[in-house]
Amino acid sequence: MRLVAGTALAGTIAMTALSAPATAQERSAAARTAGEVIASSREDEWRPLDPDNTLYVEIGDGLVVVELAPEFAPRHIENIQALVRGGYFDGAAITRSQDNYVVQWGIRALAEGEALSEDIAISLPPEFETSASGLPFARLPDPDPYAPEVGFVRGFPAGRDPDADRAWMTHCYGVVAVPRGNDPSSGSGAGLYVVIGHAPRHLDRNLTVIGRVVSGMERLSTLPRGRGPLGRYESEAQWIYLESVRLGRDLPAAERTEFEVMRTESESFEDLVLASRSRQESFFVHPSDRIGLCNVRVPIRPIGSN
Amino acid sequence: MRLVAGTALAGTIAMTALSAPATAQERSAAARTAGEVIASSREDEWRPLDPDNTLYVEIGDGLVVVELAPEFAPRHIENIQALVRGGYFDGAAITRSQDNYVVQWGIRALAEGEALSEDIAISLPPEFETSASGLPFARLPDPDPYAPEVGFVRGFPAGRDPDADRAWMTHCYGVVAVPRGNDPSSGSGAGLYVVIGHAPRHLDRNLTVIGRVVSGMERLSTLPRGRGPLGRYESEAQWIYLESVRLGRDLPAAERTEFEVMRTESESFEDLVLASRSRQESFFVHPSDRIGLCNVRVPIRPIGSN
Repeated sequence: MRLVAGTALAGTIAMTALSAPATAQERSAAARTAGEVIASSREDEWRPLDPDNTLYVEIGDGLVVVELAPEFAPRHIENIQALVRGGYFDGAAITRSQDNYVVQWGIRALAEGEALSEDIAISLPPEFETSASGLPFARLPDPDPYAPEVGFVRGFPAGRDPDADRAWMTHCYGVVAVPRGNDPSSGSGAGLYVVIGHAPRHLDRNLTVIGRVVSGMERLSTLPRGRGPLGRYESEAQWIYLESVRLGRDLPAAERTEFEVMRTESESFEDLVLASRSRQESFFVHPSDRIGLCNVRVPIRPIGSN
Repeated sequence: MRLVAGTALAGTIAMTALSAPATAQERSAAARTAGEVIASSREDEWRPLDPDNTLYVEIGDGLVVVELAPEFAPRHIENIQALVRGGYFDGAAITRSQDNYVVQWGIRALAEGEALSEDIAISLPPEFETSASGLPFARLPDPDPYAPEVGFVRGFPAGRDPDADRAWMTHCYGVVAVPRGNDPSSGSGAGLYVVIGHAPRHLDRNLTVIGRVVSGMERLSTLPRGRGPLGRYESEAQWIYLESVRLGRDLPAAERTEFEVMRTESESFEDLVLASRSRQESFFVHPSDRIGLCNVRVPIRPIGSN
């Protein structure tokens, strides 16, 4: 509910669309605010998060919920699921918090040189991009500085190069990805970082993106910044620990809030993009009639809250 | 020094530029990293901040330094300077902290219905944009979702519409602007907000931007988020107060750190943009050869630190 309100309120602008075709649907959408589009969406335009691909991350008094994107990074996500079920992320330390960039954590076992169980990979081939064929791509109409085409694939912000048949998740605010060393195959998912600032899009196609935070970003974005190089905390005393990380599937129903996300393949999402480009609120005197990829907020809400 | 390091480190990518012309200068720049460009810049490619247009904002144990942009908002900035000199910002309350959006403060006198001195305006005509003629515009080569042209005007991120001869400051991370009500003339600078998340560019040309934070952003970006509508704190007990706000001109030299900023009209800045687009660091396997406006970090450093 809070996130839905945020979508509507952070989205206030005005007028009619400029570069998109003036279809009847568009004119109708342009007469509505984002909040109105969401309020009138149909229940079948939402989907529940898949409990096998939802992480519940407890950090002190806060809960961060992550939706995984197995279509983009199947091997890394399989490894992350094994790490979660092995309990490796419980007690993982946030060791880096770089302003306007990322926070990052890693499991203790690797740092302490412990052996991991056999089903865990400690390095994996990169999954920086994938074939674009067959992915439903809700394309945005406006230019992007970095990619030939941008849009959403089942809720995830993505870039696409149709000539090369490639698609990749983009580093928008809240995106979760796998740190690595100089060797592109040196990541595994035993460490993860989350974007907490303006989208560092130069990282696109250079790191494996595995999902996005759908609730609780403020628990990460308000962490004290580290004063070492790359925002690393200068002493271990400053580390912040994940209490536990669980897959939705493994949590008793009473212990989890279940979320549903607006389908980005739906008509209401298309209307939402148009309404966000051409905002109706009287506050706006100079409508942008444009929208950037990372400025689109995919609506998400606890199930039963609407 | 810290910010300069941040520029270089957050800027790691690779290869040669794509859409910009392959001049000798560009090829030379492309062979260097951003850090190398900064290290080899000439002293005359930097300028000190103007003490009449620099705000030193003390918040608890933190210092936030703001550079004002009188070329874009002369009347608002004159008013803000009068508010500062009248002591009105001392004890101003941060009442709003909205995740991935803005923090905002306002002076007490207005909230408490006190009369302000005669030289203070409580509302001003908007200064959303200005004539582009005569402004030095370091234009970036890549497309922007929101504006026909984007670049930098004397260190400030800006959009430009050459056909209409208009220019305006853009809502990048760290930009400082004037909140208002539905009436475009209802702002004055007695309240200010700072962008703490992904650039809310739909606000461009709808609000008066007065400058940007050049140091201390982490003091604002890590504030607890408000849980009320628009990120407002739900009770006054949560407000955070500015201890004092001073113009550089009015601070004893011993009490201020003086900064210098790389001139965005300089050759080194042009090289820096090229190096940021076409990063040389071996980490990057898929160079973007592109850069977004709000991803360019204008180098700034304490004077004497290089």
